[in-house]
Amino acid sequence: MEKNINEIKLDIDKYLEQEKTPEDKWLIENHPIDIAEALSDLEAVEINNFTNLLDTEELADIFEEAEEELQIDILKYKSAHEIIEIFSHMAADDITDILGLLPIQKRKELLRQMKQDDALIVRNLLGYDKDSAGGIMTTEYLLLNKNLTTTEALTKLKNIAPDTEIIDTIFVSDNQKKLVGIVDLRNILSSADNIKLAEIMDDNLIKVAADVDQEIVAQLVSKYDLTVIPVINKNDILIGIITVDDIIDVIEAENTEDMFKMVGVHEEESIDSPLWKSIKSRLPWMYINLATAFLATFTVNLFESTIAKVVALAAAMPIVSGMGGNAGSQTLSIVIRGIALGEIDFQDNWKLLFKEALIGIINGAATGLVTGIILYLMYGNYYLGLIIFLAMILNLFAAGLFGFLIPLGLKLVGIDPALASAIFLTTVTDVFGFFVFLGLAKLFLPFLI
Amino acid sequence: MEKNINEIKLDIDKYLEQEKTPEDKWLIENHPIDIAEALSDLEAVEINNFTNLLDTEELADIFEEAEEELQIDILKYKSAHEIIEIFSHMAADDITDILGLLPIQKRKELLRQMKQDDALIVRNLLGYDKDSAGGIMTTEYLLLNKNLTTTEALTKLKNIAPDTEIIDTIFVSDNQKKLVGIVDLRNILSSADNIKLAEIMDDNLIKVAADVDQEIVAQLVSKYDLTVIPVINKNDILIGIITVDDIIDVIEAENTEDMFKMVGVHEEESIDSPLWKSIKSRLPWMYINLATAFLATFTVNLFESTIAKVVALAAAMPIVSGMGGNAGSQTLSIVIRGIALGEIDFQDNWKLLFKEALIGIINGAATGLVTGIILYLMYGNYYLGLIIFLAMILNLFAAGLFGFLIPLGLKLVGIDPALASAIFLTTVTDVFGFFVFLGLAKLFLPFLI
Repeated sequence: MEKNINEIKLDIDKYLEQEKTPEDKWLIENHPIDIAEALSDLEAVEINNFTNLLDTEELADIFEEAEEELQIDILKYKSAHEIIEIFSHMAADDITDILGLLPIQKRKELLRQMKQDDALIVRNLLGYDKDSAGGIMTTEYLLLNKNLTTTEALTKLKNIAPDTEIIDTIFVSDNQKKLVGIVDLRNILSSADNIKLAEIMDDNLIKVAADVDQEIVAQLVSKYDLTVIPVINKNDILIGIITVDDIIDVIEAENTEDMFKMVGVHEEESIDSPLWKSIKSRLPWMYINLATAFLATFTVNLFESTIAKVVALAAAMPIVSGMGGNAGSQTLSIVIRGIALGEIDFQDNWKLLFKEALIGIINGAATGLVTGIILYLMYGNYYLGLIIFLAMILNLFAAGLFGFLIPLGLKLVGIDPALASAIFLTTVTDVFGFFVFLGLAKLFLPFLI
Repeated sequence: MEKNINEIKLDIDKYLEQEKTPEDKWLIENHPIDIAEALSDLEAVEINNFTNLLDTEELADIFEEAEEELQIDILKYKSAHEIIEIFSHMAADDITDILGLLPIQKRKELLRQMKQDDALIVRNLLGYDKDSAGGIMTTEYLLLNKNLTTTEALTKLKNIAPDTEIIDTIFVSDNQKKLVGIVDLRNILSSADNIKLAEIMDDNLIKVAADVDQEIVAQLVSKYDLTVIPVINKNDILIGIITVDDIIDVIEAENTEDMFKMVGVHEEESIDSPLWKSIKSRLPWMYINLATAFLATFTVNLFESTIAKVVALAAAMPIVSGMGGNAGSQTLSIVIRGIALGEIDFQDNWKLLFKEALIGIINGAATGLVTGIILYLMYGNYYLGLIIFLAMILNLFAAGLFGFLIPLGLKLVGIDPALASAIFLTTVTDVFGFFVFLGLAKLFLPFLI
């Protein structure tokens, strides 16, 4: 069962006080990730004191599960030699991630001191973009020749099983080392002896190139219910695998990113980021929003004389812009989520655009009617009601239209639709909303006074 | 590799035209989920014609991967007998999901005609809330007694392996049938012969009760990098397992839900929902927004005489409310995401609240200063600049405060924070924003004219 993090914290305090190495039992009973979570609230010095009580393998287990900030803290007071000791218990892809966090000086030093073979693999992995299949793959997998028999395969597996991350899926290569299929361990177990792997493997496999974006990889894993996906190079040779637990991290990260980008929060901010980091994360967006807010102000300014004559317009105009913004963000969410899940079929675009525009008109009419009636009752002016009714239909129509076109347009020119859509959209719904409402008011002015 | 859905569609058209059963090769080469995707654009009659060309097992494969709407279409013209044939190739939890979609009459009929044993399992599963661990678990798993030896276990596995969904993780029970541990197949394979499972199993396992919410289950699977999590009853007896592919679906669904709820779109709407369903999904939220928009209108109305004297206020006031709304939704996203990922530590609440409020003041001052200067340059009035500077500090302070308190408050009283937070928040930032800006203006009125 999940342990109470606070209990673990108290235990750690106790071990620190007594300068005593934790019992094996304690280390087994508490999951490394929970220990990591408990550690992350401590100062770097205390973290170092505690990790010095552990042997390298125990520390490596905790280290691998730690958040980036804690990893940096753990390494802070460790010598290059100690760090390489820790690395020796870790997978190449995890080592690569750590090196990516370190200053280039330190990284080079560590690579120099690592074993030649290991350094080569890590250098290779460092070459991939960190958001690509190559950047998240691990180089530990099981690859057997298709001419092996099930009996030979089982013997091999029995020998190498303890050291590999996944064993349920075994990859199969031909004599040119090309990846040609996968076979489940259960199929090997339940097949008759001495059948060649080629005969029982599935050769219709889903695979990705190393430069494919991690979001696409996640879509494939999710769609085809995979637990592991192979990564190949240009010659169809297996160079790594991505396991589903890493895919879950990708999905969580991409979702956080989409949600944050829509409101201008940096993807790396979290609830407990330090103050200055939060300000840095959010203030730029606030300035961009301010610029667009002024566009709306300039629009209203055009109609100063009209408002001076009918002040009710000032009270009513936020309804038009606000409702437009709401309707637009509904369309936006649907479209952005559709893009993220790979559901948007670009062939049906016109039909979908037409639908969103129509929803805008219908919802605009439905809410505009109620608004018009209430304003009529408030101010006793029939035309004011009519004007807001028309303005809301037009603004919600625009909201549907642009809520659909903006994210797709951004996607087409290669900009992340989650990032900038909201800002463009509210500019449209504010500026157009004020313009159409106040413009109609100016047109009908004689009837409003 | 992933097939082109359009190719599959053309193939299906061809098979339909020739009334010809698809070749085995075609069925192997095309993943059932791709065939399902291609089918989902057809009319129910065509779908029925095509599925009649398949044998039951082939149809069951496609059926299991289909979206709900396609599943309903497939069953539309099938007899109870044919449906039960399809069910015989499916797992109990998938059958349960289908039955949940059918009218109660039809469901009862099918349960009556199913095999007694199967019906019992399904009836049992139907009793769980569909968003709980029990609602998403499958009842197919491997459970072995802890006194079995590795050799005995391997023999057993060899016999039952072809029929189970997962074999990498084997669950271990004691003589009272209680779940006491898990063991990886690789550990069994690589252990010496004739060692008892009790000796090599991991008894420190993560498990959940059947009534635990699926979001919590997903958090556990994600945190502990599990590929499968056991579900137990009150007596610690294993009653089902949840595999990671189902967890990915849960994560995607919860993310969509969070994103949609924040803008008032129903979680079941997608980019290609029919028009009326989209209207039904979004219009209620628009009416709720309208109600809060009127609160803002009433607030502005209080200051009608002030605006009549200084029309510039009408042009500037949307800046205060808009920037407050933006700042608040930044805080909101951070907090809602923190809650979803289980990162919010309720003990640190005061510190976090203080931080968000402080960010509001700092960002309010930073953007308010620029706004004040521009307004001064536009209207040549020093006091107008000062007023908007103060109003923005106050409104962004309120945005940080309520952006933090509203979702946590809703969470405490058991309301989904993603659902209603945005509406409460924009009400605060609009009403308070207008009030504080126009209120200050009224106070300083002699200096503004």
